[in-house]
Amino acid sequence: MHNTGPVARLVDEFARLPGIGPKTAQRLAFYILNQPAETAGRLAAALLEARESTRRCTVCLNLTDQEPCAVCADPRRTPGVICVVEQPRDVLAMEKSRSFKGLYHVLHGSLSPMNGIGPDELTVRELLKRIGEGKVKEVILATNPNVEGDATALYLSRLIQPLNVRVTRLAHGLPVGASLEYADEITLSKALEGRREL
Amino acid sequence: MHNTGPVARLVDEFARLPGIGPKTAQRLAFYILNQPAETAGRLAAALLEARESTRRCTVCLNLTDQEPCAVCADPRRTPGVICVVEQPRDVLAMEKSRSFKGLYHVLHGSLSPMNGIGPDELTVRELLKRIGEGKVKEVILATNPNVEGDATALYLSRLIQPLNVRVTRLAHGLPVGASLEYADEITLSKALEGRREL
Repeated sequence: MHNTGPVARLVDEFARLPGIGPKTAQRLAFYILNQPAETAGRLAAALLEARESTRRCTVCLNLTDQEPCAVCADPRRTPGVICVVEQPRDVLAMEKSRSFKGLYHVLHGSLSPMNGIGPDELTVRELLKRIGEGKVKEVILATNPNVEGDATALYLSRLIQPLNVRVTRLAHGLPVGASLEYADEITLSKALEGRREL
Repeated sequence: MHNTGPVARLVDEFARLPGIGPKTAQRLAFYILNQPAETAGRLAAALLEARESTRRCTVCLNLTDQEPCAVCADPRRTPGVICVVEQPRDVLAMEKSRSFKGLYHVLHGSLSPMNGIGPDELTVRELLKRIGEGKVKEVILATNPNVEGDATALYLSRLIQPLNVRVTRLAHGLPVGASLEYADEITLSKALEGRREL
C-alpha cells in the first residue's frame, strides 16, 4: 500500500472515534486534506483546548471550563432541587427542554455489575454529601429508562429516602407526536398506569 | 445554554465535517472529553501533521508526503499505462484491488458545468503533458460511472485519442456477489451489452 505515513495515521485516528468506520474515517481524512490548512488547524486547536480546559465541576460533576460550572454558579437556579443524570450530554438534553430550573448531579455512568460498575465508580458519594448539607428538598432521578438506569434510580432512591428528601423519577409514557399504533407494549402499559385527570 | 466555551467549539468543529450531524458531533466531543488527554492530543497531532506534510505529487497529482509519490517512484510499476481517477480515495480503492500495475493520474474532481467545474479546474493540462512526453501507451479512464464521470471520460477520450494512445474505460456490469433480481435496469442492460464469450 502506498498510503502509509501521515494520511494513514489520520485515517487511523478518525477510525478510533465511536461510530466512525474505516470508510467514514477515510472520507473525513481526505475532506480535511482537501480543505484549507486552517480547517485542520481549527479542529486540532478545538480538540486540545476542550480537553485541556474541561474539568468536572466540584459541585455537580458536570464537565465545565469554569469553577463552579455555569449552572451551579447561576443565582436564578433553585438550589433545593437536584436532577440526577447519567452523563453530561443528558444535562444538555434537559437544558434544551428549558423546563428545569434546579441544579444537576452527573453520575458519569449507571450501575452495571456486568461491566464492574458499582456505586464507587459513580459519583454517588458526592451526591449524598450534597444532600447531607441539608438544603436539598427534592431529588429527581433522571437516569435513562432502561435496565441499568432503572436499577440505578432504585438504588439511589433507597439511599436518599431515609434522609427525608422527596425522591421522584421522570414519567414514563408515550413520547409527544408518537402514535399508539407503533408504541411498544411496555411503554403503553406505563402510559396507562400513569394516566392523569384532564 | 450553559454549554458555551471550549466544549461547544469542539462540537461545532466536529459538526463541520461532512456526514457528521449535531448529535454525532456532540457524541464525539463527549467521547474525547471522557478519554485520557492523550486521545485528543494524538488526533490533533495527526490532523496537523497530515495537513502540513501532504502535497500533490508533481507527476500524478495524488496526495502524498513524498516527492514523487510512492507509486510514481516504484520502479516495478509499468509507466506506459495511466489510470485516470477523480479523487485520491479512488487510487486507494484501485490499489486495494491489487489488479493494476501502472501509474495513476488524479483529476481532483469531474467536469460539472452546473458547479462551475470545467477542464481548467481539473488536472487535465498535466495529464496531456504527461501523455505528450511519448511514453504512455494506454490511458484507462476510471472516472465514476455517473453523469459527471461519464462526461469527463468522454471529454478526455476526445482529447487523447488523436494523440495515438489507446483509451479504455472500466467495464460496466453486475458487481460480483450481486443478484440479477436486485440489479437496476441500466446496469443490467450494460451487463448484457458487454457480455463475453466463455
